[in-house]
Amino acid sequence: MPETNTDYEIVIIGAGPAGLTAGIYAARARMKVLLLEKAAPGGQVIMTDWVENYPGFPEGISGYDLSEKMLTQAKNLGLEISTEDVTSMELSPQTKTIHMGEKAITTKSLIITTGASPKRLNAGEGKFMGKGVSFCATCDAPFFKNKTVLAVGGGDTAIQEAIYLTKFVNKVYVVHRRDELRATKILQERAFKNDKIEFVWDSVVTGMDGLFGVENVHVKNVKTEETKTFKVDGCFIWVGTTPNTEFIKNALELDSWGFIVADQHMATSVPGVFAAGDVRTTPLRQIATAVGDAAIAAISAEHYIENL
Amino acid sequence: MPETNTDYEIVIIGAGPAGLTAGIYAARARMKVLLLEKAAPGGQVIMTDWVENYPGFPEGISGYDLSEKMLTQAKNLGLEISTEDVTSMELSPQTKTIHMGEKAITTKSLIITTGASPKRLNAGEGKFMGKGVSFCATCDAPFFKNKTVLAVGGGDTAIQEAIYLTKFVNKVYVVHRRDELRATKILQERAFKNDKIEFVWDSVVTGMDGLFGVENVHVKNVKTEETKTFKVDGCFIWVGTTPNTEFIKNALELDSWGFIVADQHMATSVPGVFAAGDVRTTPLRQIATAVGDAAIAAISAEHYIENL
Repeated sequence: MPETNTDYEIVIIGAGPAGLTAGIYAARARMKVLLLEKAAPGGQVIMTDWVENYPGFPEGISGYDLSEKMLTQAKNLGLEISTEDVTSMELSPQTKTIHMGEKAITTKSLIITTGASPKRLNAGEGKFMGKGVSFCATCDAPFFKNKTVLAVGGGDTAIQEAIYLTKFVNKVYVVHRRDELRATKILQERAFKNDKIEFVWDSVVTGMDGLFGVENVHVKNVKTEETKTFKVDGCFIWVGTTPNTEFIKNALELDSWGFIVADQHMATSVPGVFAAGDVRTTPLRQIATAVGDAAIAAISAEHYIENL
Repeated sequence: MPETNTDYEIVIIGAGPAGLTAGIYAARARMKVLLLEKAAPGGQVIMTDWVENYPGFPEGISGYDLSEKMLTQAKNLGLEISTEDVTSMELSPQTKTIHMGEKAITTKSLIITTGASPKRLNAGEGKFMGKGVSFCATCDAPFFKNKTVLAVGGGDTAIQEAIYLTKFVNKVYVVHRRDELRATKILQERAFKNDKIEFVWDSVVTGMDGLFGVENVHVKNVKTEETKTFKVDGCFIWVGTTPNTEFIKNALELDSWGFIVADQHMATSVPGVFAAGDVRTTPLRQIATAVGDAAIAAISAEHYIENL
């Protein structure tokens, strides 16, 4: 067994639910592990007002509290966490070098859990996060029972989520910047037949306001330049998701949207490098799935190191 | 869209963490869903004394309490649960018929989350569950720091888990019924080199006793008939895992051990039938992975029904 000296056995990048779970597993397995996070731990979940579908919390839990609990659990088990911004990496099967500006560390294995960010409109939605603005109907639709909402987007996700919303809300205005949808035909047909959905074509959201939450969404027709204000209780934004993979450059195989390709063991294209959670190509992006992925990634990393 | 009338949109079989999570997602999505469980909800987790690696519980939580929380959460979201023993099934893409003795119900989609059971020795370990007897080193090894334990088995899992145990315990006796291991060569070599592991060949466990937990494990050499008692703090049993798939018969593709084969969407060989958690072929069997699988299975079932 040729031993390579590295600073760590496992380095984890990103401290959302996936990163913290990988940390919980690796620290508990007494691995020499470091978690790197560029800002405060928690990931997207911290911005989530209320989580009802992470199993184990009968009344639901705030995203902030859930993150805190996972962080405390990881620390209780001895996980070392450092605030660093990873700038680039050199990956070989035996050694992975992680650069953070001028500093660098080496590790035998690497777990990437940097997540993804929903694309923003930059139309004033920032101040209404968890106060009427949402990026996920599966997560938040039940909070809008019998309400009126506005949704933005025209792709598969947007139309699928809009149809899903109609199980809960009374009315969904779907604002799309063109006069036809990108979504697949069958979804379009279903949306056109759904009398709770009203399309607002050739239009973009220019702003929103409200006292405690979203009350008014301002929309402009890009052809006629006409503006109109919609009185709604919420605004769903589905204009795409950006994986947080800039620092990876060409070091790993990514799919055409920039997500990391990983197999059922969470193994990426480079031996000893694993990916878990929203950052990887996956059929579903939820806290539950991030946590499941991450447990597998940690065990896979452990087995990888044992067999070096 | 040809509509088929069925009693339910989704039926879930099994109420461990996977089944309850699928129920949480399906009920919250306002699907017409029924969960069938043959005994009390909870699955294997209920027998787990203390869970330290399910993310969200900084101090850990008892298996019983975690099950209760998931069950309450599912009920709060409106999940209908019925105690029934599924005896057989007829599966077609449009309709699945579930037989429970003389009764039968129909459903558009089915999620199987019946779990798996570790094989027993039937050597008195029943009364020491969570009191020194364990089937999972990843789960329980940290509770045996600096202790002496006995382990039973000779396959890959047994040897891998025994090596893992040595990170925590002072000593592991590995009892195996033959005079050589079934485990792969590299694992064998590693185990033989590990001075915390002592093999007890040609031997079986015949009984165990102790006041509050395991204290003595009785072992018999099958060749010499000699008996010996080992004073230990714990007993790990790794003699195989049996998936709870008897009722499936030939209705679905199973792997050679009887686990359900499912893809990354949790889809099985029959359209509209999904599997999640310990019952499927998977690289890791943990609460975290069961929960992740099940969220995907529920969303996959929902999409399947939408496209019928």
